[in-house]
Amino acid sequence: MPDDFVTKSLFDSDELVPPQGTDGPCFDDTDAPPFEVAIPPIRLVPKEDREPYLRLALIGGVGPRTLAALVHHFGSAREVANATLKDLGKVSGIGPKLSTLIREGTQSDLLELVQQHCIEHSVQILVPGDCQFPRMLLELENPPLFLMFRGKLQTNDSLAIAMVGTRHCTSYGATMAERIAKSLARQGLTIVSGLARGIDAICHRAAMEVGGRTIGVLGSSVTEVYPPEHDVLAEEITSHGAILSETHPFSKPKAGVFPQRNRIISGLSLGVIVIEAADRSGSLITAQHAGEQGRDVFAVPGAVTSRMSRGCNRLIRDGAILIQDADDILEHLGPLVEGIELENGARVSHPAELQLNEIEQSVLQCIESLPTDIDSVVLKSGLPVSRVLSTLSVLQMKGLIKRPSSRTVSR
Amino acid sequence: MPDDFVTKSLFDSDELVPPQGTDGPCFDDTDAPPFEVAIPPIRLVPKEDREPYLRLALIGGVGPRTLAALVHHFGSAREVANATLKDLGKVSGIGPKLSTLIREGTQSDLLELVQQHCIEHSVQILVPGDCQFPRMLLELENPPLFLMFRGKLQTNDSLAIAMVGTRHCTSYGATMAERIAKSLARQGLTIVSGLARGIDAICHRAAMEVGGRTIGVLGSSVTEVYPPEHDVLAEEITSHGAILSETHPFSKPKAGVFPQRNRIISGLSLGVIVIEAADRSGSLITAQHAGEQGRDVFAVPGAVTSRMSRGCNRLIRDGAILIQDADDILEHLGPLVEGIELENGARVSHPAELQLNEIEQSVLQCIESLPTDIDSVVLKSGLPVSRVLSTLSVLQMKGLIKRPSSRTVSR
Repeated sequence: MPDDFVTKSLFDSDELVPPQGTDGPCFDDTDAPPFEVAIPPIRLVPKEDREPYLRLALIGGVGPRTLAALVHHFGSAREVANATLKDLGKVSGIGPKLSTLIREGTQSDLLELVQQHCIEHSVQILVPGDCQFPRMLLELENPPLFLMFRGKLQTNDSLAIAMVGTRHCTSYGATMAERIAKSLARQGLTIVSGLARGIDAICHRAAMEVGGRTIGVLGSSVTEVYPPEHDVLAEEITSHGAILSETHPFSKPKAGVFPQRNRIISGLSLGVIVIEAADRSGSLITAQHAGEQGRDVFAVPGAVTSRMSRGCNRLIRDGAILIQDADDILEHLGPLVEGIELENGARVSHPAELQLNEIEQSVLQCIESLPTDIDSVVLKSGLPVSRVLSTLSVLQMKGLIKRPSSRTVSR
Repeated sequence: MPDDFVTKSLFDSDELVPPQGTDGPCFDDTDAPPFEVAIPPIRLVPKEDREPYLRLALIGGVGPRTLAALVHHFGSAREVANATLKDLGKVSGIGPKLSTLIREGTQSDLLELVQQHCIEHSVQILVPGDCQFPRMLLELENPPLFLMFRGKLQTNDSLAIAMVGTRHCTSYGATMAERIAKSLARQGLTIVSGLARGIDAICHRAAMEVGGRTIGVLGSSVTEVYPPEHDVLAEEITSHGAILSETHPFSKPKAGVFPQRNRIISGLSLGVIVIEAADRSGSLITAQHAGEQGRDVFAVPGAVTSRMSRGCNRLIRDGAILIQDADDILEHLGPLVEGIELENGARVSHPAELQLNEIEQSVLQCIESLPTDIDSVVLKSGLPVSRVLSTLSVLQMKGLIKRPSSRTVSR
């Protein structure tokens, strides 16, 4: 942890929303005036541009807006490295202070230091467009410029749900966190959380306990786990998923790093479950990010008399989905943008499919997105006709298949 | 209580929804086939028709549909008393069994017995159109045919809110019931409930404790309080409001009397607050009635792990308004159909007016429903101009006044 004091005093409490102005979006485009033209963030870094891109991305003060503007102006990240101060100053929205920072950054050896550090600590770096870079993050308005991770990221991690909550949880919160995390992880969902004390840690542990997958998103770098006592937990997570961060190991402590981290927690997930949260909890920021990102927000209700349920009750009052168990969540999640293949080879295109029994699953696996003849479903599944027909009714009722005609079905 | 056993076994549990078919609407139009023409229930009983009307209304098996059909067919309740069995049989929707019941009923001396009983027990009888007959009940699809009450009904009882919940409440439920009932009663709302054990009794007592008004709606007759141990409570209520019932003292025990009673609890009120309820609680029937009657449904959230909060959490999930305190309720209630005059002489046309401070109230009292000149508000209120202007802003923000022009305001 670069500066324990600053980080602690400002952000080490998920009960305390940091002072206004620091909890904004991630991009830290130093002294950034409004850009004249809106240039979309970079969704793909060409292979040959990877190193110069990273060199730019590591510069403190360069966010997705500046980076996109630079690449747009000079044609590629490589060309930015050759730009003089004068050239840089010509880019719309880049002032003298930022120009100097960029010029110094492109000449520094920070990237080499980071790369050496990554090799020593088995850390991998992902940039947008890398096949492991989570697709859902690319859709964000302010995606992370790069991700550093330890462990393993899998295709089925796109079937992820975020679970967050207060560090100072009650026994009720702990019970609900464990119960829901276990149930969702058992059904094949990856549990994403923030590795904080309290609810976060309980959710990570619960997922691992039932053999599920979990991803810990850090505000600190992946080699300086914060809080320090979760060092071992982080290590465990790397063998059941991954820990990841957009903070590099030599970065200076920055305001707003935890709230910014929260947008990645929600961004990685189909929805965010708030288990327990006080009135001004950081979890509410994650919920807010989730709403802005078009993710579902779920909350566990609690007694009005419990301070730690106030945030959840308020969320529900304001429109979050009240949930009592894991099924309430699976029923609400919409279809995946892209179907994924599970470890057992089954293809899943809707989280509700995880709730199906074996027969329902095997019948569903015989159905394509194009109209499939019912006869061929019977043939493929090897099940009796009557069984297939009744199962098709169930699948249709659950909204998982359509019947384009009397003789065909489709996903 | 006519038959304690039947009543107890079938209905004395607000956790147990009675068997299907018995929790239907109040009207008990014996062997009633569907009426051919929909005749609206009677909203006004002419003075000269009062006794024959009551005689009909006291007949077990005659509900609002039959009574309306009879009066419609014969022209008045008086005429029905002169009808032969053959005449009665001609009324659309009235079969032989019901005809016989009606003929016997019109000839019996039940009304005289009831009237004698009422005199002895200081019970008053109201029929639709009586000035004390609660106006909001007249709007119901199935209004009570008559009401018997002890105590006093006031104009400001139209500013009523129902509070219901389980008989087997937890300490959390008890705390919330007391807290919310006291706060609402203090602000001038009449607390309506069902005089049952648990939540109901707590709400009645809380309202009285702070000097507020309360109405107890009984399933039994007002002279046979059920449960018997609430005899004293009922007596107390008569000096802080009223106990009322649509069941006459000589009626036979009938299935569904408690669920039917619940429609009066919600019908009397601007909204229904469910404090604590198990999954199949009778309180959920009251909430359902409320929804059907166009009343607001409020519910107090609770821990998922508490059986007694399941009903409330489910209500919220299904669209009830989550509330944490009395203010949440006052903010949600819509304007009254008709403005009422409070005991202090102030006119109230919106429940939110009860939350106003003294200055806000006195400024509001100077504003008519027609555009009122701001100068005249200043003059009438006797307050400094700046104070009036800032108060007008507050009132406008709270949605209690409009500003038709820059120089005028209106309610």
